[in-house]
Amino acid sequence: MSNTKGRILYNEKGWEALDSFFKEMKIRQVFVIVDEHTEIHCLPLFISRTSKEAVYEVIKIPAGEKHKNISTTLYLWECLGKKGADKSSVIVNLGGGMVTDIGGFVASTYKRGIRFIHIPTTLLAMVDASIGGKTGIDLDHIKNQIGTIQLPEMTLVDTDFLFTLSGDQLLSGMAEVIKHALIKGKTEWEKIKEMKTPEIASVAALVPSSIAIKEEVVVQDPDEKGLRKVLNYGHTLGHAIEAYSLRTPGSIPLLHGDAVAIGMILESYISTELLGFPKHRLEELTSLILKLFPKQPFDDGAIASIIKLTSFDKKNVNGEVRFVLMEELGKFQTDCTVPVELIYRAFSYYQRA
Amino acid sequence: MSNTKGRILYNEKGWEALDSFFKEMKIRQVFVIVDEHTEIHCLPLFISRTSKEAVYEVIKIPAGEKHKNISTTLYLWECLGKKGADKSSVIVNLGGGMVTDIGGFVASTYKRGIRFIHIPTTLLAMVDASIGGKTGIDLDHIKNQIGTIQLPEMTLVDTDFLFTLSGDQLLSGMAEVIKHALIKGKTEWEKIKEMKTPEIASVAALVPSSIAIKEEVVVQDPDEKGLRKVLNYGHTLGHAIEAYSLRTPGSIPLLHGDAVAIGMILESYISTELLGFPKHRLEELTSLILKLFPKQPFDDGAIASIIKLTSFDKKNVNGEVRFVLMEELGKFQTDCTVPVELIYRAFSYYQRA
Repeated sequence: MSNTKGRILYNEKGWEALDSFFKEMKIRQVFVIVDEHTEIHCLPLFISRTSKEAVYEVIKIPAGEKHKNISTTLYLWECLGKKGADKSSVIVNLGGGMVTDIGGFVASTYKRGIRFIHIPTTLLAMVDASIGGKTGIDLDHIKNQIGTIQLPEMTLVDTDFLFTLSGDQLLSGMAEVIKHALIKGKTEWEKIKEMKTPEIASVAALVPSSIAIKEEVVVQDPDEKGLRKVLNYGHTLGHAIEAYSLRTPGSIPLLHGDAVAIGMILESYISTELLGFPKHRLEELTSLILKLFPKQPFDDGAIASIIKLTSFDKKNVNGEVRFVLMEELGKFQTDCTVPVELIYRAFSYYQRA
Repeated sequence: MSNTKGRILYNEKGWEALDSFFKEMKIRQVFVIVDEHTEIHCLPLFISRTSKEAVYEVIKIPAGEKHKNISTTLYLWECLGKKGADKSSVIVNLGGGMVTDIGGFVASTYKRGIRFIHIPTTLLAMVDASIGGKTGIDLDHIKNQIGTIQLPEMTLVDTDFLFTLSGDQLLSGMAEVIKHALIKGKTEWEKIKEMKTPEIASVAALVPSSIAIKEEVVVQDPDEKGLRKVLNYGHTLGHAIEAYSLRTPGSIPLLHGDAVAIGMILESYISTELLGFPKHRLEELTSLILKLFPKQPFDDGAIASIIKLTSFDKKNVNGEVRFVLMEELGKFQTDCTVPVELIYRAFSYYQRA
């Protein structure tokens, strides 16, 4: 399998590949990681689509970003050790980004790396987390502070899993679909800019092209030396907003996509101010996002904390916060520095919008 | 630097490269990891050989294999986070195999991987741990259960560090030097088989060729699919003996090399029995090792526990213990299965010798 590492297979083709893979493996050598939700909502579909002879062991972890931490990692490492997993074992990560991130990290570090397969079950994991080989866990509330870059043997995308999602979860993934459209440019943008409430069928139709956009970027820059940074659009402030919402008592924890959606409005406003990103595009983006995502309140204290949190972003160089900004659809500048005062103005634009 | 990743530089050349590297870096971006011993015995030499303008921050961890664990790893990850280390930072691991293993693991997982340099200060780390890109920490007393394969930017070998070692530590490294001679074959073996008490000058003279032997193997098989397994000679039982000595109350904790030295006698006896490894070579090896290393007692209970521990060895495939055995000097067979009864006989040969 290793010469096709990182391949993405859809629907039947994916299940066929998985089945032939199960046949290759000896008994008890495939471990399927699920969380409390995917055990109930996704494991039945997984079982129905794999052949009856498939032999695997299910390992369950608690759901939610707050468990994407070292203690869940330790639990998984020890669990694999106790169950006798060795270099020939394979891990299947069946879940959202939390499961694919932590499962990928555990697999890439257990006995210095064993093989793993992603089966993303959320829109976000399909178009983002499971593509490109980034694995990670959070440390001290800093997202993906610890991780590796390691491609899965394959990613199996079955859009039928989208039916298992709540409206919120579907939306959360839409933020990345929107980001990919901005990265690709005008044609892709025109396809989605008028979208109203997302319906599963129309969202599912967008998945392959959205994945292809991310893949195109990743293949050209696997180690994030340059181009790959565009995938960080909306994330410098988005990650900080998400971290803030998770760590502040009394604050409602935001889903990753909700935070990134706000981050994209803020960073597009900054792009307009600094690089002349067209105002009508900023307005189209703002209107699309506010139609889909709930608006969040931020007071000055919150904004100050969020700005402080950006300095922990992994993409920083020599301690300075660097942004990816957009000149026009499909055209980006990386490593931009942004005056703090402009970040405040971006929040004020968001709040007035 | 990245196109010369994994290069090994000796003495002045190494220090020059390190100095030019320090000059490249901005202030506070180099972190030097030391343990309680290397802080006292090796940091002064490090300081005297780097230019006065070199700017770095020292991070100290507790010494000893028992601290090569997740809690020291967490301490280092958090320390780097608090000190603002980012993707452009560099870690220098100044110490024995414990420091290079854990420092390499921390560097290869912090923010999905930052650059690192090894400066091995023990013989064992020079000829083994710091060469080939394996990083690791122990989990539940299983050695290197968690780790990555990631080459350092460079390994700087200065044999003057050998003067900082106790006799025991020097000896511990000799086990790997002996193993490399067995791997290379007759010429290399003739050079060392008559060695009496090792003197630093003569040991230092063996270091470059011993490193070259390991490098030659690693370059041909970086991911340990085949050839690299020969480096595991003596280690299947050696690791188990070491683990047993560390986890058994009342047992004297063995140094890695002491355990591997015993492992080499045992596995050479097995090689003679199963593959016809020449008896006079077995006797030469036994006599060299028993001249250099203290003999250890093993009762039947100990042997049974050690055999059980081998099933946790990372190199196992589908739960079966596989040995690397030797047909003659320089010629190996990998993935051999060995009857348990023969392992008992090997221990009895060792005890009679």
